[in-house]
Amino acid sequence: MDNNKVIIFDTTLRDGEQSPGASLNVFEKIEIARQLQRLNVDIIEAGFPVSSPSQFEAVKGIASEVSCVVAGLARAKEVDILSAYNALKDAAKFRIHTFIGTSDIHILGKFSNDSYGKSLSDKRNIVFKMTHDAVSLAKTFTDDVEFSTEDAGRTDINYLCEVIEAAIEAGATTINVPDTTGYTLPEEYGKIFRHIKQTVKNIDKVILSVHCHDDLGLAVANSLSGVINGARQVECTINGIGERAGNASLEEIVMALKVRKDLLGFYTDIMTTEIYNTSRMVSSFTGIVVQPNKAIVGDNAFAHESGIHQDGMLKDRNTYEIISPQTVGFSKTKIVLGKHSGKHGLKARLSEIGYSLNENELNEVYEKFTALADKKKEIFDDDLRIIMGDSFVNISSNHYVLEYMHVSMGTNLLPTSTVKIKKGSTLYQESATGDGAVDACFNAIERALGIKLNLESYQVRSITSGRQALGEVIVRIREDEKYFTGRGISTDVIEASVKAYISCINIHQNYLKEKEDNLMNQSSLSDISQAI
Amino acid sequence: MDNNKVIIFDTTLRDGEQSPGASLNVFEKIEIARQLQRLNVDIIEAGFPVSSPSQFEAVKGIASEVSCVVAGLARAKEVDILSAYNALKDAAKFRIHTFIGTSDIHILGKFSNDSYGKSLSDKRNIVFKMTHDAVSLAKTFTDDVEFSTEDAGRTDINYLCEVIEAAIEAGATTINVPDTTGYTLPEEYGKIFRHIKQTVKNIDKVILSVHCHDDLGLAVANSLSGVINGARQVECTINGIGERAGNASLEEIVMALKVRKDLLGFYTDIMTTEIYNTSRMVSSFTGIVVQPNKAIVGDNAFAHESGIHQDGMLKDRNTYEIISPQTVGFSKTKIVLGKHSGKHGLKARLSEIGYSLNENELNEVYEKFTALADKKKEIFDDDLRIIMGDSFVNISSNHYVLEYMHVSMGTNLLPTSTVKIKKGSTLYQESATGDGAVDACFNAIERALGIKLNLESYQVRSITSGRQALGEVIVRIREDEKYFTGRGISTDVIEASVKAYISCINIHQNYLKEKEDNLMNQSSLSDISQAI
Repeated sequence: MDNNKVIIFDTTLRDGEQSPGASLNVFEKIEIARQLQRLNVDIIEAGFPVSSPSQFEAVKGIASEVSCVVAGLARAKEVDILSAYNALKDAAKFRIHTFIGTSDIHILGKFSNDSYGKSLSDKRNIVFKMTHDAVSLAKTFTDDVEFSTEDAGRTDINYLCEVIEAAIEAGATTINVPDTTGYTLPEEYGKIFRHIKQTVKNIDKVILSVHCHDDLGLAVANSLSGVINGARQVECTINGIGERAGNASLEEIVMALKVRKDLLGFYTDIMTTEIYNTSRMVSSFTGIVVQPNKAIVGDNAFAHESGIHQDGMLKDRNTYEIISPQTVGFSKTKIVLGKHSGKHGLKARLSEIGYSLNENELNEVYEKFTALADKKKEIFDDDLRIIMGDSFVNISSNHYVLEYMHVSMGTNLLPTSTVKIKKGSTLYQESATGDGAVDACFNAIERALGIKLNLESYQVRSITSGRQALGEVIVRIREDEKYFTGRGISTDVIEASVKAYISCINIHQNYLKEKEDNLMNQSSLSDISQAI
Repeated sequence: MDNNKVIIFDTTLRDGEQSPGASLNVFEKIEIARQLQRLNVDIIEAGFPVSSPSQFEAVKGIASEVSCVVAGLARAKEVDILSAYNALKDAAKFRIHTFIGTSDIHILGKFSNDSYGKSLSDKRNIVFKMTHDAVSLAKTFTDDVEFSTEDAGRTDINYLCEVIEAAIEAGATTINVPDTTGYTLPEEYGKIFRHIKQTVKNIDKVILSVHCHDDLGLAVANSLSGVINGARQVECTINGIGERAGNASLEEIVMALKVRKDLLGFYTDIMTTEIYNTSRMVSSFTGIVVQPNKAIVGDNAFAHESGIHQDGMLKDRNTYEIISPQTVGFSKTKIVLGKHSGKHGLKARLSEIGYSLNENELNEVYEKFTALADKKKEIFDDDLRIIMGDSFVNISSNHYVLEYMHVSMGTNLLPTSTVKIKKGSTLYQESATGDGAVDACFNAIERALGIKLNLESYQVRSITSGRQALGEVIVRIREDEKYFTGRGISTDVIEASVKAYISCINIHQNYLKEKEDNLMNQSSLSDISQAI
């Protein structure tokens, strides 16, 4: 590898998925991983295998699906590293990514127990030893071992260098220096890399990596500063999703490196024309909207496409546009298919926008496609993305099914709904009123099923163009500290809402069952839900 | 003023309002200006007076309303500067902000006509002279004159310095060096400031200003780099809204300066506890959503508030949070009012979240408040914000009014709607079917009014918490290259949709009438809709 290539390490499926409410099912994760491969990222961090059985399954599924390097996260603990190895071992190429907190605040917070030593100095020594042991153990399973110093941005620089040296000595091949809390400024973050490069023994034998969070809006600038000062791997997520204000956004970093190659001289292997497709897929699956003024992938990012351009703009787009929409695959209004498109045409178009389906999946999707084409003359890419999102939800949870619904509402009329729901051979039916048509439906569903849920949020996403646009409803319910997200699509907002609520209930029921079956390892979850 | 204060120049109402689809009416602009004053910004750029009569009116209205400095934008042309002066002259303190394109690409694009000289060199000379004349003219009206070199980021550095020197000689007191296309990298942008500081005569007599766009995700980092290298004014917008990927975000810059005062040493006079209120107001009025992973003001920006924290997190928030939610006034679930709250309580709470109403306005809002409190036990701040947004829409356009509606839909039932609409004493009524309940309503409305509109987008915003949450529907229609945005709120999504569509139709009808009355100066609009 030449010295100007920047490795793109995508952590959308790990750090990105830690965003509140973003939980993805295994089918969705594999679909995103396939799209990340089309985008040509170098490494996909697929999850945190030890944290839950579903994380383990997702990492295992992705590992056997894609051909690029698949990474799994593991604390500097034996149980984590073994779990990561077991999830990853079938991959064509894999990496174990182990980490430990190195700032005083993290050491004192995470290793407060006396078994990790009594004084800060004792605890530091133990963290040092844990680093060496973890990397050594990982090294027995693979040559490709990454080590991260969590909260490096706030870590004492001398101690940081010592820990990194230990990791390299134990065999780490990539050293990641994360600004976990998004606290640093670009020059300050760059300086850490300069210092590490100058100080740490054998630093030239490893790849240095940046991992930045956006709490002060500086994740992209910090990442670039790290690269300018010696890092050659960037950890980032699609749409910049992630804990709190999120991670550095893949698309912004990649395009900054590309547009300003004149000044910086670096390049990545990213297929930039796949950026927009990937962004849309991640937004649709996670339910995390992209604001219109988001750089690169926001609806308004390109003046021309927004419709608010002037003649002068058309004549010379360079006046205001430094990136052409085509470079990132931005295409809002492409008409792709209609009522008379065959299964072959559908499959081809789905493949172009990043979905590869087997025969059964295609049949199911085609059925939905023709139902939609009956209602809607022109089917856009976004419609297809929605159909796909809807399909995966249904594949993964198929308990309660809506059989019948009726709603009536109007001026001086209490909104009233009747629903009939089936589960296996059992029928549930009820009617109820509400403050609005949707509320009436939700009340009728709850009354029919004899449950009462804590509705946390209700979103309708404006999707696709034209009068008969598809609407996607996302509902989120909360139990304790956990969220459950359900989605439904329809040309009718009421119908979409009902579908979403029932899908949410099904997912919630799955969770209750899993919990009952003791499949969820709650104790290990509690201290690892936040990481790096 | 000491040398470490950074002046905050808010351009939400000028550059921010240039976002596609963000158009605000005069009432909304004044309300936002009042809130910006509570936020304690130093300067409010209120608009671009010459660009349209409604811009002129808004600047005039704001100028007479707030006590901080009000700025108006003007090209380096006599007609613009006179218009700015006339709009601003009643302000307590005002600034004329004039600008001209200085990069070759802008000079050749905007001054292609031979009357501006034949060669690039001729044109550069004329731009130079226009600068001097414009600043001199502005100076006859006020001592506070700002001059901007549009597309400075791509301007030849020597020519840039010459133009700035001419502007200072003519009397400019603030020199703004915008990166109009969001093209520069932090170090590169900072270098421009270092060079200007070292080269330009009398540069110490003026305030240098940054104005950054976020096309590569670097607007905040570039702004900070400018400040580190000598700028003492930051031009920015709430939520980072603006053309394309938007402007540098006020809240990110202010909080970065505050959180990292240890390293940078600068401060602003911003009341950070008003940040969240301001963000919500701007989002609600413009209809531009804030993504959950947006720094400082996104729903997920604070791990604690998102509900996904763990015990360890609660014990030591410093482990992952570098800003406390209280610092920026983040409060998601505060219960403020209920059915039995009086008019006085309502007024007090509205005032706390930034709305000051006269008696008539309060009466109108109170009526809506009690109607809502009948349906909804707990009224949150967000509910109040929505009521306020709805009120201003209605105040400004009151033509067609919904008298009656009825909708019924269900399985194997064509969604059917009946509406009755009144305008003055004329009644319009019709029924229609559609692909969904909302579509049926829209069809019925169009049929009743005998119109057919181009529906560009339909959004439902998830607002407020609890089961009986208020929903806000935003519809956008398009005619030629112009958008018209209507909003409606209700606990019922169908009713909100109908209200939004009728409000949109009213706004569109206003426009048609204005156009007919020749109030719109189309020719001047065409070449100034994009600026700085």
